[in-house]
Amino acid sequence: MFQDFDVTASAETGRERTEALRDQFDALGIDGLFVPRADRYQGEYVPESDARLAWLTGFTGSAGIALILRDAAHVFVDGRYTTQLRQQVDPEIFTPQDLIKTPPAAWLRKNAKKGWRIGIDPWLHTIADVRGLEKAAGDAGAAIIRLGTNPVDAIWHDRPAEPAGAVSVQPEQYAGQPAAEKIALIKDAIRDGEAQAGILTDPSSVAWAFNIRGSDVPHTPHPLCTAIVSADGQDRLFIDPRKLDRETKAHLAPLADVEDPDRLTDALAALGDEKAAILVDPALTAARIGDLITDHGGRLIEKPDPARLPRAQKNAVEQDGSRAAHRRDGAAMAAFLTWLDARRPGTADEIEAVKTLEASRRHTGERLQMPLRDISFETISGSGPHGAIIHYRVNEETNRTLQPGDLYLVDSGGQYQDGTTDITRTVPVGEVAEEEKRFFTLVLKGMIAITLQRFPEGTRGVDIDAIARAALWNAGADYAHGTGHGVGAYLSVHEGPQSISRRGLQELKPGMILSNEPGYYREGAFGIRIENLLLVHEPRPIDGGDKPMLGFETLTLCPIDRRLIVPTMLTDRELAWLNAYHARVRDEITPLLDDDATKAWLAAATEPVEVESG
Amino acid sequence: MFQDFDVTASAETGRERTEALRDQFDALGIDGLFVPRADRYQGEYVPESDARLAWLTGFTGSAGIALILRDAAHVFVDGRYTTQLRQQVDPEIFTPQDLIKTPPAAWLRKNAKKGWRIGIDPWLHTIADVRGLEKAAGDAGAAIIRLGTNPVDAIWHDRPAEPAGAVSVQPEQYAGQPAAEKIALIKDAIRDGEAQAGILTDPSSVAWAFNIRGSDVPHTPHPLCTAIVSADGQDRLFIDPRKLDRETKAHLAPLADVEDPDRLTDALAALGDEKAAILVDPALTAARIGDLITDHGGRLIEKPDPARLPRAQKNAVEQDGSRAAHRRDGAAMAAFLTWLDARRPGTADEIEAVKTLEASRRHTGERLQMPLRDISFETISGSGPHGAIIHYRVNEETNRTLQPGDLYLVDSGGQYQDGTTDITRTVPVGEVAEEEKRFFTLVLKGMIAITLQRFPEGTRGVDIDAIARAALWNAGADYAHGTGHGVGAYLSVHEGPQSISRRGLQELKPGMILSNEPGYYREGAFGIRIENLLLVHEPRPIDGGDKPMLGFETLTLCPIDRRLIVPTMLTDRELAWLNAYHARVRDEITPLLDDDATKAWLAAATEPVEVESG
Repeated sequence: MFQDFDVTASAETGRERTEALRDQFDALGIDGLFVPRADRYQGEYVPESDARLAWLTGFTGSAGIALILRDAAHVFVDGRYTTQLRQQVDPEIFTPQDLIKTPPAAWLRKNAKKGWRIGIDPWLHTIADVRGLEKAAGDAGAAIIRLGTNPVDAIWHDRPAEPAGAVSVQPEQYAGQPAAEKIALIKDAIRDGEAQAGILTDPSSVAWAFNIRGSDVPHTPHPLCTAIVSADGQDRLFIDPRKLDRETKAHLAPLADVEDPDRLTDALAALGDEKAAILVDPALTAARIGDLITDHGGRLIEKPDPARLPRAQKNAVEQDGSRAAHRRDGAAMAAFLTWLDARRPGTADEIEAVKTLEASRRHTGERLQMPLRDISFETISGSGPHGAIIHYRVNEETNRTLQPGDLYLVDSGGQYQDGTTDITRTVPVGEVAEEEKRFFTLVLKGMIAITLQRFPEGTRGVDIDAIARAALWNAGADYAHGTGHGVGAYLSVHEGPQSISRRGLQELKPGMILSNEPGYYREGAFGIRIENLLLVHEPRPIDGGDKPMLGFETLTLCPIDRRLIVPTMLTDRELAWLNAYHARVRDEITPLLDDDATKAWLAAATEPVEVESG
Repeated sequence: MFQDFDVTASAETGRERTEALRDQFDALGIDGLFVPRADRYQGEYVPESDARLAWLTGFTGSAGIALILRDAAHVFVDGRYTTQLRQQVDPEIFTPQDLIKTPPAAWLRKNAKKGWRIGIDPWLHTIADVRGLEKAAGDAGAAIIRLGTNPVDAIWHDRPAEPAGAVSVQPEQYAGQPAAEKIALIKDAIRDGEAQAGILTDPSSVAWAFNIRGSDVPHTPHPLCTAIVSADGQDRLFIDPRKLDRETKAHLAPLADVEDPDRLTDALAALGDEKAAILVDPALTAARIGDLITDHGGRLIEKPDPARLPRAQKNAVEQDGSRAAHRRDGAAMAAFLTWLDARRPGTADEIEAVKTLEASRRHTGERLQMPLRDISFETISGSGPHGAIIHYRVNEETNRTLQPGDLYLVDSGGQYQDGTTDITRTVPVGEVAEEEKRFFTLVLKGMIAITLQRFPEGTRGVDIDAIARAALWNAGADYAHGTGHGVGAYLSVHEGPQSISRRGLQELKPGMILSNEPGYYREGAFGIRIENLLLVHEPRPIDGGDKPMLGFETLTLCPIDRRLIVPTMLTDRELAWLNAYHARVRDEITPLLDDDATKAWLAAATEPVEVESG
């Protein structure tokens, strides 16, 4: 199993560890210390060795930051994690703060006392973050102190070793483009920025550029490492050599000098000594990296990571890989949903469902000779009221039996060598009420509206987000998350810069993969989400139109539960899409099934939905 | 007539005047000079005395800026004015530049030579503009020089006198709130900003706050003037005393000290001498104002103009006023459209239509005892291919007869004491082709979608802009302008901060008035636009919904041409809206008509549209 169901919260050690931190304050000359969830790579997942926030506080969510002061300790989390924070940390020690409404900088501006010195480990904060913290602290007459060592590490005696997960080559048959060509693109961007070199600090950017994959953190197959790409000279990859075997070494040899990560510091200082102009992305790069360059006389050219946009626009091979991965993943989903429908309501539980789904992906992957490498995130398996918890993680304590009348929401995905999947389906357990069906159909209308929307070049995610919400808004409802995020090609399931959301300022471009996942959540009652992945296609002409328009190809292939649809609420156009989609699902998935029960289930699940006339 | 049809372009004097400007460069120590279209108030309309750009170049568009160099002269305009610029200026002297793609700052960054000194009149550029220009010039090794006098004025010997248009009191029966209360709100904002005073430089903000209206510039009834509002003390209004009569003086006396505009400079310097913190809006305030304060030791607190948001949210009295104005305006439109439909195709021309429409507004206003004070902008009266010119201004040279088979687009509005209107209708001249009807119906679908859209608090204009475009996009078409702009209450017909557009970052709030005007333009062939004004209503509950939602009340009352609608392209929901709207137009407008022909026309124009069954 890639997923476990342990209760990981441990609030008991918070007091003692916080005190041990404070004991160092005088020696360090600080009045407080930030302990972020991030590691130096700023990724979604951190290895055990860098889970400092969890070790210190007990909080295991995927975003947060603690501020330990002499007489108080604050933990900043967003709305997703308010409840979880309360359950996981000692309330006598830690005060919850709202990461969105009063992020650390705003908190400092308002609350910092004149003369306060707040320590940070500059490896764990980005250049942009530190700038914001320094500005806010300065406004309050306080200061941010960049520490040379991490005070948490000083007291974390049984800190796990850094991961040394094996690296593999992502062969051209899946990557679609030689690493040398990708690196040449990055060199172009560095020269365009009038820099002598650029630092790739996002491991997904390094993985993409060098056509390698890793296994250092759960669910995101990038190796933790850093690259210095030179505008015109030799490139350098700083990666633990234990991660590399003969094949990967041979692959990397013509691309870059492979060096020990310990040497990165000297390399950055040397760039500074050369007075070089170095391209860095201030939103992704550790402040320490910037300091090493500028302290030695170098200059930063601040630009977005040059790998992000080309990485987001999948090439034809990656697109084909994703299509294939989605067909297999659809077959696995069909087998899982067949199993679920065969269970008598009131017998299966949430953990059993997660296990069965993961097993179905494994089994399907093995059978079709493209093994499941990992799940792409921890499966959200929420029945009844748990479905309304947007980032619900089932564990042994919360596990719940799927009851008759429940909606059951399952959001999951797989990492395959040819692609990353992410799908949500919501299904009824026995008979459900009309209210649930009405909202399911409203969510479906939004999901279809995005699927069918054509749009001109230059359209950004923010421009179409409300198209998914229009039907819900008109019914007096909404959902408190974005409509869609970018998805990588056998990389992170949450990939920037593209998104469909209020903050989606990136233009949508051909080859980008995005999720389309409107939802509806009634706290304490039920949750609904329907999610397909979409691929942005090239501008295509439209009969009678003036100009070719971009649009979406649907990648995900899995029935949308007919039992939850109120056909009279759908327009002819929506019904036509639904029935065509189901016909396609049946045509493409049936040949991949080996099991008669699943074939029969799929045939029934993809029957046309019709409005009864009369 | 408020509108004239003169051919105002005069390209002949450009060479001589440009040379006369250059003759001053050595004495001023500059290598170039910016000549913006703006006056010191940065409004949409400038008085003749400030039409420096037009005087110098011949270009009369509503946005633009010239950069006169020793050996070249550039005029930056946006896409609306590319053609007009070519017609109006001497191409041997002036080179067109793209104001959007390469605005002056970007041009300087790319083209300025090291050591260049580019002069500006700091009264005519905002603080934010100058900052952008200085940054760009600095990057190129050049400098921006703030001149103490305006070199254009030095050679403009027959420059008209500054306007001294009469000021009137906007009585509380239309303003809905005493000036003292509004000013108190501004004082609150100044104190919240920890400032000792604030400068109101937008004449519409002064007009709103002091409940006065003016007649200095065409079409926008604000008086050119500036106010210094004190956090706790006496306020000062800098306005030409010739504009004030006994009544306005009596109205203003308890609100502020009325002072001559010549004294503003000293007053700002005095604020600086007091080391005061002064709230200014850097996007609206002349750089010179900021300089006067800071050069004397004062400090700027940069915030949005505190009058903008309360001004945009019309109070109940203003809302009622707008409703009444739109009823009368609807009656005037009905009489005009009746006249137009009665004309044999091929007989009326564009100028005649403008004149008839203005006469209809005047006549209706007099009859209903609320005279037309002005048109709210120059009527766009475009037949056939002229309809595709988004900001078409008809003159004696371009005037065209409405031909059978044409679409005729008329975009116009009135200024009444109780409200400002802005309406566009597109009508057929005789029989038009199916293609025009198809696109008219697509535009109508977008216009209805916005009209019916409900949305939660926090929704911004940018979030719903694409909802107006969705049907057109899906047909391979789009329009190259925003969907809607804010509208004032007997003030500017283009009012910020609200808009429905890609740049609409302001949240939509109850009481805001916005236009809803999607369109479609086929160059050289035809243009379509349908525009109603909408009022944002308070959040209202929705049956079966979770939370009250904001939405729109339609203010504009005028039939949408049934002859151009393809009923089968409309959903039931769209048809139901259309027929309900037409029933409302008939019910509300008929009682205001005095003419049987118009009554009959209105009855026919508001008959239900039905899909023929079978």
